[in-house]
Amino acid sequence: MKLASLKNGQRDGQLVVVSRDLSRCIAVPAIAGTMQQALDHWSVAAPQLSEVYQALNSASVHGEQPFDQAQCESPLPRAYQWADGSAYVNHVELVRRARNSEMPPSFWTDPLMYQGGSDDFIGPRDQIEVVSEDYGIDFEGEVAVITDDVPMAISAEEARHKIRLVMLVNDVSLRGLIPNELAKGFGFFQSKPASAFSPVAVTPDELGGDWLDAKLHLPLVSHLNGKLFGKPNAGVDMTFDFGQLVAHAAKTRNLGAGAVIGSGTVSNKQGTDYGTSIDEGGLGYSCIAEIRMIETIRDGAPKTSFMKFGDSIRLEMLDAKGQSVFGAIEQKVVKYGV
Amino acid sequence: MKLASLKNGQRDGQLVVVSRDLSRCIAVPAIAGTMQQALDHWSVAAPQLSEVYQALNSASVHGEQPFDQAQCESPLPRAYQWADGSAYVNHVELVRRARNSEMPPSFWTDPLMYQGGSDDFIGPRDQIEVVSEDYGIDFEGEVAVITDDVPMAISAEEARHKIRLVMLVNDVSLRGLIPNELAKGFGFFQSKPASAFSPVAVTPDELGGDWLDAKLHLPLVSHLNGKLFGKPNAGVDMTFDFGQLVAHAAKTRNLGAGAVIGSGTVSNKQGTDYGTSIDEGGLGYSCIAEIRMIETIRDGAPKTSFMKFGDSIRLEMLDAKGQSVFGAIEQKVVKYGV
Repeated sequence: MKLASLKNGQRDGQLVVVSRDLSRCIAVPAIAGTMQQALDHWSVAAPQLSEVYQALNSASVHGEQPFDQAQCESPLPRAYQWADGSAYVNHVELVRRARNSEMPPSFWTDPLMYQGGSDDFIGPRDQIEVVSEDYGIDFEGEVAVITDDVPMAISAEEARHKIRLVMLVNDVSLRGLIPNELAKGFGFFQSKPASAFSPVAVTPDELGGDWLDAKLHLPLVSHLNGKLFGKPNAGVDMTFDFGQLVAHAAKTRNLGAGAVIGSGTVSNKQGTDYGTSIDEGGLGYSCIAEIRMIETIRDGAPKTSFMKFGDSIRLEMLDAKGQSVFGAIEQKVVKYGV
Repeated sequence: MKLASLKNGQRDGQLVVVSRDLSRCIAVPAIAGTMQQALDHWSVAAPQLSEVYQALNSASVHGEQPFDQAQCESPLPRAYQWADGSAYVNHVELVRRARNSEMPPSFWTDPLMYQGGSDDFIGPRDQIEVVSEDYGIDFEGEVAVITDDVPMAISAEEARHKIRLVMLVNDVSLRGLIPNELAKGFGFFQSKPASAFSPVAVTPDELGGDWLDAKLHLPLVSHLNGKLFGKPNAGVDMTFDFGQLVAHAAKTRNLGAGAVIGSGTVSNKQGTDYGTSIDEGGLGYSCIAEIRMIETIRDGAPKTSFMKFGDSIRLEMLDAKGQSVFGAIEQKVVKYGV
């Protein structure tokens, strides 16, 4: 099934069940008022939500309304946990190579993951407000899952069964702030402002054969300022599946229902050393930093600039029939406070 | 005023107003059922809660009950944001010196802060469950504040006025996992399991003159296995006040109401190079790592061991009259899953 949170002037929005084709939706206050409420009682709520979903897909339902992606919050407008992996190790290797730094071999077996901030997610069509262009504004196209309660020290195999919903995410990054933060040794903080998630979150069963081995086997399509920038397949070159990522996050602590775990920037090697851009006939990339790294490695300096005020990014995933699975994240970068 | 969350079988517990002497409390469902609900509508809820607090302190109130610290969740049993600074730079300098690594001078002007996990805080009397003693189990005694909504790019001075509540925290650390995680460059994750906060959260006005310049000027008393381990003053050698820490956290993003910001391990220089232990007649420390560092610097190797299963830690803060301000965090380390 497909679920979303509509803006309603409250901090957590209004949970709605969305039709498969994303055309219609219906609020379900008798089941749960918000997405977190549904997740807090998933075993009870999910079958009821699923019934509504079946009814909505087969006919018009009393109380339904047109589904407007522009009215969406992120599926969880705020969450108790947001941890983002770097499962496409190819991407990590590139970052390192552009810095002339060797990547430890352990990175192929021990996932990188950072703890993100989750108190202020923004909606999929909300503007990305940044104080200064000098921060080096970049998007990062990723897949993310929402978990049920996950007990500490769970195995990767068991963790697969704790995944309740799948989404896309734009993990906005401020590249200019990253080197100083990483040098301090405490990880990302100011360099990772508010993230936005796709309008709709989807249960794994809804994805059919595209959800295989806890990976989502569909291309993540990104458009930068209306121009195709990337379409790598999220199921390819994903070194760690979502079961492994969730288990990594839960190694020393329980995860609460509604924990959001991200894949890291989707990146395909494409049979080359560094992947290939769309302009060169390749699958392109899911963030600007990656093409800049390739330019740096190949040409000695980056050519593509980071996002400026007024620039826009669109992230979407289409199924085999060309139907949007999650709706589209579509955001414009603007100067904060203007 | 003083507020707490009692265990009630729900994820967020039951908000109660607690008498100043911590002897009695009362639920206030007509104002807010949970701490987060109160924080979500603080400007409306706070005056009402304050009225109940005044009434509770002056006489017995209908519906009151004895306040039992052992029945407490952390004031926020789960939160949307938990960011922990390292405001006692002396502590950071010691860590570095024990590693023979120079501390960058910028650490005196640019706060260190890591993004913590907040979906699974444990109660102040809950056991600390750890898979293996080999993880190097340590406590860290700290002060933390809970904020109102904080807009991006706020000044440190303005940020002081966004502080709604003050607490203590035991920021449990798994020292054995830290070197590998920091080497990976993405900050702490598995090395920071669930934190526990003091039974009671307190408004700054309640602290009177002990809350000055957004610092809490009282000794943080820690007992390890019943023996006094430290009593450094949290107002001394705190390089960054809570206004600066909140502003740091909000540099590139808004903070949502209920964001928890920590001070980092409380540490006093005590007019010496490395502080002095309780046994040596000094003020001691607020974590085991610090005394191990001093032993390493002075004797070439650490002597004090990290916590073993069965070990206990107690953290408390007393006012000038010897009255417990926040109640006591009192936790035993146990093997997970036994």
